[in-house]
Amino acid sequence: MAMTDDARLQPGDTVGILGGGQLGRMLALAAASLGLKTHIFCPDPDSPAFDVSCAYTVAPYDDVSALDAFASSCAVVTYEFENVPGATAMHLASRLPVRPGVRALEVSQDRFHEKEFLRASGVALADYATIDSDEDLAAALTLFGGTGVLKTRRFGYDGKGQVMIRTASNARGAYDKIGRVPAVLERLIPFDREVSVIVARGIDGVCSAYDIAENHHEHHILKTSTVPANVSAETAAKARDMAIRIASSLEYVGVMGVEMFLSGTGDAETLLVNEIAPRVHNSGHWTDDACLTSQFEQHIRAVAGWTLGSADRHSDVVMENLIGDDCHSWPQILTEANARLHLYGKAEARAGRKMGHVNRITPRTA
Amino acid sequence: MAMTDDARLQPGDTVGILGGGQLGRMLALAAASLGLKTHIFCPDPDSPAFDVSCAYTVAPYDDVSALDAFASSCAVVTYEFENVPGATAMHLASRLPVRPGVRALEVSQDRFHEKEFLRASGVALADYATIDSDEDLAAALTLFGGTGVLKTRRFGYDGKGQVMIRTASNARGAYDKIGRVPAVLERLIPFDREVSVIVARGIDGVCSAYDIAENHHEHHILKTSTVPANVSAETAAKARDMAIRIASSLEYVGVMGVEMFLSGTGDAETLLVNEIAPRVHNSGHWTDDACLTSQFEQHIRAVAGWTLGSADRHSDVVMENLIGDDCHSWPQILTEANARLHLYGKAEARAGRKMGHVNRITPRTA
Repeated sequence: MAMTDDARLQPGDTVGILGGGQLGRMLALAAASLGLKTHIFCPDPDSPAFDVSCAYTVAPYDDVSALDAFASSCAVVTYEFENVPGATAMHLASRLPVRPGVRALEVSQDRFHEKEFLRASGVALADYATIDSDEDLAAALTLFGGTGVLKTRRFGYDGKGQVMIRTASNARGAYDKIGRVPAVLERLIPFDREVSVIVARGIDGVCSAYDIAENHHEHHILKTSTVPANVSAETAAKARDMAIRIASSLEYVGVMGVEMFLSGTGDAETLLVNEIAPRVHNSGHWTDDACLTSQFEQHIRAVAGWTLGSADRHSDVVMENLIGDDCHSWPQILTEANARLHLYGKAEARAGRKMGHVNRITPRTA
Repeated sequence: MAMTDDARLQPGDTVGILGGGQLGRMLALAAASLGLKTHIFCPDPDSPAFDVSCAYTVAPYDDVSALDAFASSCAVVTYEFENVPGATAMHLASRLPVRPGVRALEVSQDRFHEKEFLRASGVALADYATIDSDEDLAAALTLFGGTGVLKTRRFGYDGKGQVMIRTASNARGAYDKIGRVPAVLERLIPFDREVSVIVARGIDGVCSAYDIAENHHEHHILKTSTVPANVSAETAAKARDMAIRIASSLEYVGVMGVEMFLSGTGDAETLLVNEIAPRVHNSGHWTDDACLTSQFEQHIRAVAGWTLGSADRHSDVVMENLIGDDCHSWPQILTEANARLHLYGKAEARAGRKMGHVNRITPRTA
């Protein structure tokens, strides 16, 4: 079922999703509400997305015959994580539309490429330098005043593959700690807060950004997202503009999470882009219960080639991740009048595992 | 997995659903958001609910071995339609909780039993008489002033199995027209409007009613539900009270639709209960996009033995059914900023077939 790049799906068509975690699961639920079928491709036989999909394939991402059969059953392919192997994405893209495109994956899989792209897009970000040796690190630290954050270029998430360098003693052995792989050093920003914007872009080029969220992490894992964020109207508008600029520069199709650092207050508020995620994003889970269109439906509409929905927000909201044993509080959460419980159907509540989330909403009632 | 009548499910448990249409599908989607699995049992191999369930069984409702296997895989069984054969429900109820209970099915499957139950519950309804012969019909028509609506006691829906009698000529052959099966004659009510209330009752006996909806039918099929209904605050409160009284009288567990006739205006508004449906109801589809908790989630919470959610409404809404070819307007609907499209994944848009619905919402924004 080869389709051109601007192809639009019909109800009843199948959206292929690479990755079977909670993001794939929530994408599949959103697709079903729109009359679309889903086919999940994931190596993990216990993928929670399988429970709500029409079809699923358990195979490694480099299994070409499994990918071919998957491609034959789908009208478009999308993904729930940015570390889809490049060869997998390229192979599928030769068969049918992959949205967001292969370029979004290439850019986001390598921190240096990502930063180069962001700089070229004209958005503000912290200074950075590539690091391939102890000498590179020493030189960059000198440039940045002796401090910085050393991060692997590839495969970092939830604080993994990172070393914070605040002192000369931190610097010693830092490159060893991340395994002497290609890396970047980022200038240390005295940021006060972390914020994010979820932005969508349709195949018609129309962009739609949700309200800025203020994010709080614990142990490098997102714990809460609060909307509205406690920022000035100017900052809120600027954050959305930056996210839209990024999506437009990339000729992106789908939903993207844009993480930013916010420093200062009032007129002195300054935003720097931290990183982008070419997929629905944990810091956008609040949209499901507080907006006309959730990020999951928005992503499905975009990758289906359909008109985007309204990102307007009808409620104030705090999203809280249920991590590990947090999920055992579900009976109490159900008794809270304004709490919207979401559980991902994962059997085992391991430490650090995202088991669900709760959106506590306050309708903006007249 | 035998459970007592007050048993509560755990996340990861399976809700069995009899019937695989759009109601079963939307129940399965709601269950998935709460971390519950679903198993759909339906004789139709093309059931739209199969696309979003963990497991499904295609078998007749009287296939005892299929029912036994189904029961063994589930922690509770519910249903999407009231005409579940009594023997099926009884057999399952001997194995595991069936919610709403067998009594709710018995009452709602027979119009006469339903009316007797409603009268005993103390809610107002139109006069009625049982009809088993032409003589019964003649006598009842005399009693009701020569007019009435003749309805089969069993298996009526969407106007099927009904004859309107407004004249003596209508009366001739009326009993033949409905196949000379056991019937009731209802006194013809000069009602102005049709309204409904969706009510839920948990296993703890707590009831929660949604706002009253005003319903408009075309060709005996629901076309739109509008909330708020154009009724007085007293009527709105009274309608909810009547629905709660019915659910309580039945010791019901789950969501129920209560259809009512409304005549008069202002202080002269009068409500008469028309019929009850022991399941999620088409006139409650608006709850999905206008309330904190949808009727589908509310039903799943009730049958799982969980605390009910808030039925508060954050938006005004008009629900429109997409019947037959109506569904082909989906691309236009997607361009409406406040329209929430729902499609059921049915392949063929036959005349009169419910293909989807759209909720057009107006947030009650400050």
